[in-house]
Amino acid sequence: METKISFTTISDLIENINSIKSDLLLLIVDKNVYSLYKQLIFNRDELVTRESKKIILKVVDDGEKLKDLSYFNEIVEDFLSKNIHRNSHIVAIGGGVTSDFAGFIASTLLRGVAWSVVPTTLLSMVDASIGGKVAINSKHGKNLIGNFHLPQNVFIGSDFLKTLPEIEMHNGYGEIIKYSFLSKFIYDSILVKGSKLDSIINMCANYKHDITEKDFSESGVRKILNYGHTFGHALEKVYNISHGIAVIWGIWLINSVFDYNNMNEILLKLLDHYKISLKNPVQKNDFDQIIKYILKDKKSTSNKNIEVVLCDKIGEPQVISITHKELRLKLEALEI
Amino acid sequence: METKISFTTISDLIENINSIKSDLLLLIVDKNVYSLYKQLIFNRDELVTRESKKIILKVVDDGEKLKDLSYFNEIVEDFLSKNIHRNSHIVAIGGGVTSDFAGFIASTLLRGVAWSVVPTTLLSMVDASIGGKVAINSKHGKNLIGNFHLPQNVFIGSDFLKTLPEIEMHNGYGEIIKYSFLSKFIYDSILVKGSKLDSIINMCANYKHDITEKDFSESGVRKILNYGHTFGHALEKVYNISHGIAVIWGIWLINSVFDYNNMNEILLKLLDHYKISLKNPVQKNDFDQIIKYILKDKKSTSNKNIEVVLCDKIGEPQVISITHKELRLKLEALEI
Repeated sequence: METKISFTTISDLIENINSIKSDLLLLIVDKNVYSLYKQLIFNRDELVTRESKKIILKVVDDGEKLKDLSYFNEIVEDFLSKNIHRNSHIVAIGGGVTSDFAGFIASTLLRGVAWSVVPTTLLSMVDASIGGKVAINSKHGKNLIGNFHLPQNVFIGSDFLKTLPEIEMHNGYGEIIKYSFLSKFIYDSILVKGSKLDSIINMCANYKHDITEKDFSESGVRKILNYGHTFGHALEKVYNISHGIAVIWGIWLINSVFDYNNMNEILLKLLDHYKISLKNPVQKNDFDQIIKYILKDKKSTSNKNIEVVLCDKIGEPQVISITHKELRLKLEALEI
Repeated sequence: METKISFTTISDLIENINSIKSDLLLLIVDKNVYSLYKQLIFNRDELVTRESKKIILKVVDDGEKLKDLSYFNEIVEDFLSKNIHRNSHIVAIGGGVTSDFAGFIASTLLRGVAWSVVPTTLLSMVDASIGGKVAINSKHGKNLIGNFHLPQNVFIGSDFLKTLPEIEMHNGYGEIIKYSFLSKFIYDSILVKGSKLDSIINMCANYKHDITEKDFSESGVRKILNYGHTFGHALEKVYNISHGIAVIWGIWLINSVFDYNNMNEILLKLLDHYKISLKNPVQKNDFDQIIKYILKDKKSTSNKNIEVVLCDKIGEPQVISITHKELRLKLEALEI
């Protein structure tokens, strides 16, 4: 089953959701989205009273606290108490947290039901909603309990971005910047052609879609999407910063460690293009903590090696395997 | 990834487990199997001290209580606390409850790790361990939270059956009897050739393996494996009887409802062959409760229709779709 990515206005969204072939829609909606768009979307008669479809609406918490096993239990048991069936269809409306959570429910409910996503943040439009990686958190780390379960539809409504806080926009730009390193086409569209955001979102979503289609379970080419993420995940934890921002500094740090200074110059250009002025939080005396976090990260394929994505030329990323020890030595040798 | 089914003696089991290509084995072992085979299997040096492999052993409860979300949480968090990685390999040793539970963990841990099964009951040798259907229970019903995740190996050690209680043997014969209706080859092997149990186990496991390979996610031919199960699941619940026994009476009931009396004569022959003398628990005044349970069962693809497997000739099962109302009327018309 392939994902269909399409753009929608908010006013067409209901029609799109109603076009889903199922007589029972299970809507999982972020509480902020719900309160901002209550009148526009959720109170409209055609969504709630259309006779041919039954709708169960669950408004859920925002933030990582949602992705907890107890919350999973609560929502799943609630759905199951309502006589749902295998042709039920889950619709996630919210950011990456909502879609990770709702997608994991879809992947396990009655051994898997179909689902669709309406991403409402920039980060989820270009990244989280695409590719079917779904998960909840363990107390030992984020996304450690999960699945691969492709959504049937991704309905992108960039109108939602009008109500998105600036920090959340930066969060999304972090991943867009990552794609600019992986794809010359996206890089050129941003820095050479100055394409509009809608068009960039479309390119990034489809770029990720194509990669994940080639390598669904992340055993090959999909790994390049982790560019900036090896350090990124650690920085996110150590400095308590958002994912996209952490990816920006993760890209900077891996480039610094491997002496790709020209790549870091490009990073500055991209930050400048998106008018992102942030202080680099990375400090040398946190390196121990950073390495310690990486050792625990699930991308380690065995206890000795770690896979890292490098990029010394726009559009030419490569995955290398390196021992923890080597990575630590390289990091320690870095003067910042 | 295809499942490799192989037979093993108990003394060769360790060698087979050690041949799994992973440096970290996560063993999930039923507590009864553990206490019966502690000396023979689990205390042997080669399993626990082999330097190239690390082993984490979890001995778990028996019975459906294991398949609870809180138990899932406990074991998953325990594994995650131990710095496991994506090439970890779960090995389930026990009956269907153990493999359902361990397989569901394997399907979600770090978004899925490989796993193998050592089935120790007749039911799991011929059914539960084959085909990758894994699940835990909801408070609204069994196996409602789950996944499709094929094991890499099924190591069948029929020596384990020597310590299996008679009721558990009957439980397994129930599914073997089901296969006799679905496959003329298995039917002939049992009633005409009188083949030995080892050989019948092999045929049944491979029959299911072939069917599930053709239709992994149960959208087509795999549905025939539910022969006897529509009523069977209900009878299991209503009369609190074991799964395999419930399948026997489920076959009897669906044949009765559709007037396939010649099929029920064959059922009696098969029961006689395996020296199973059981009292038929089904009573007409429980029909309401039976229908009520079926309405809740997850095999309903919508709220109006239910798919039922019929078999009016050995080896020629067919899936029909019938409304709940029709099924109820047919059941009510039945005189027993």
